[in-house]
Amino acid sequence: MNSLKEKCISSKLIYNGKVINLYSDEALLPNGRTAVREYITHNGAVCVVPITEANEIIMVRQYRYPFAQVTLEIPAGKLEKGEDIYICAQRELSEETGASAGDLKYIGEYYPSPAILNEVLYMFTAKHLTYKSMHTDEDEFIQTEKIPFDKLVKMILNGEIKDGKTQAAVLKAYLLEQNTLLK
Amino acid sequence: MNSLKEKCISSKLIYNGKVINLYSDEALLPNGRTAVREYITHNGAVCVVPITEANEIIMVRQYRYPFAQVTLEIPAGKLEKGEDIYICAQRELSEETGASAGDLKYIGEYYPSPAILNEVLYMFTAKHLTYKSMHTDEDEFIQTEKIPFDKLVKMILNGEIKDGKTQAAVLKAYLLEQNTLLK
Repeated sequence: MNSLKEKCISSKLIYNGKVINLYSDEALLPNGRTAVREYITHNGAVCVVPITEANEIIMVRQYRYPFAQVTLEIPAGKLEKGEDIYICAQRELSEETGASAGDLKYIGEYYPSPAILNEVLYMFTAKHLTYKSMHTDEDEFIQTEKIPFDKLVKMILNGEIKDGKTQAAVLKAYLLEQNTLLK
Repeated sequence: MNSLKEKCISSKLIYNGKVINLYSDEALLPNGRTAVREYITHNGAVCVVPITEANEIIMVRQYRYPFAQVTLEIPAGKLEKGEDIYICAQRELSEETGASAGDLKYIGEYYPSPAILNEVLYMFTAKHLTYKSMHTDEDEFIQTEKIPFDKLVKMILNGEIKDGKTQAAVLKAYLLEQNTLLK
């Protein structure tokens, strides 16, 4: 694998933002040439597939500014610095849906766009949900909606759900459930 | 849905890069307050799940600089300005694996990280593959590897494949194949 490796020659912080930082590095390629590598750093995040007793998924509608459109996604949110991923998953689930999970299961990592972004999303399923009232962040505007698990999988297969983490985590949760049922 | 909408008050180009641009906008929120929206613009890309006659997926190992690690992903690549997505899919498939697809099927869009990045990936499956020699870009270093479709799905379910588009597109292709088989 060493033959694929690139080495950092110099690194330049272009922008130090609220949520993201932008770097432009000079990298040494395996053939001895150099190339510019532009990339974004991000603290990481969690996303949760909340599965109700009626086998529905609690989804979130929200406005995504870079697309100027409302998307339908599973609950998700940024990790605070040093925050435990399970605590973050419970917090984001509670903030966005009002639910608390009796059974929170980690189902793997998700790299959204590894060529340009070092963000890692930690994916979870949440079951045995109990409900309190919602308490979203002050400047967070969302609407929740329950969709039957089977129907949501069909919506993903039909191309109706565009968000990547939702496609990956929901299909993964669905196949993991099937495996469990088959055992 | 109007109640979720945010309006651009002012937009500032922070960085005009080779692959990505970075903007910092001031946005008007539904409650009348304002917020900063930092986001990246990107031309878009394609990714392809190449399925061989032996029901293997042709995967690509490559170094991902933002993670300083080698990842295992399906073939993918950036759209050139104005390029047709089918032509781009055939081009990237050919460049990275040496294969040409007799049957190239579009299976939907994938938004990698819609909160901060406007990139759209157009996902494809590729079948009826014929092989020529590979001709990667001069500064592109990759290794290909064939993995049985079932085994790759298990690797995704086990958390061994971190790349998001690979998780989404492979699981989608797998369930679409199952649906076709059931019909």
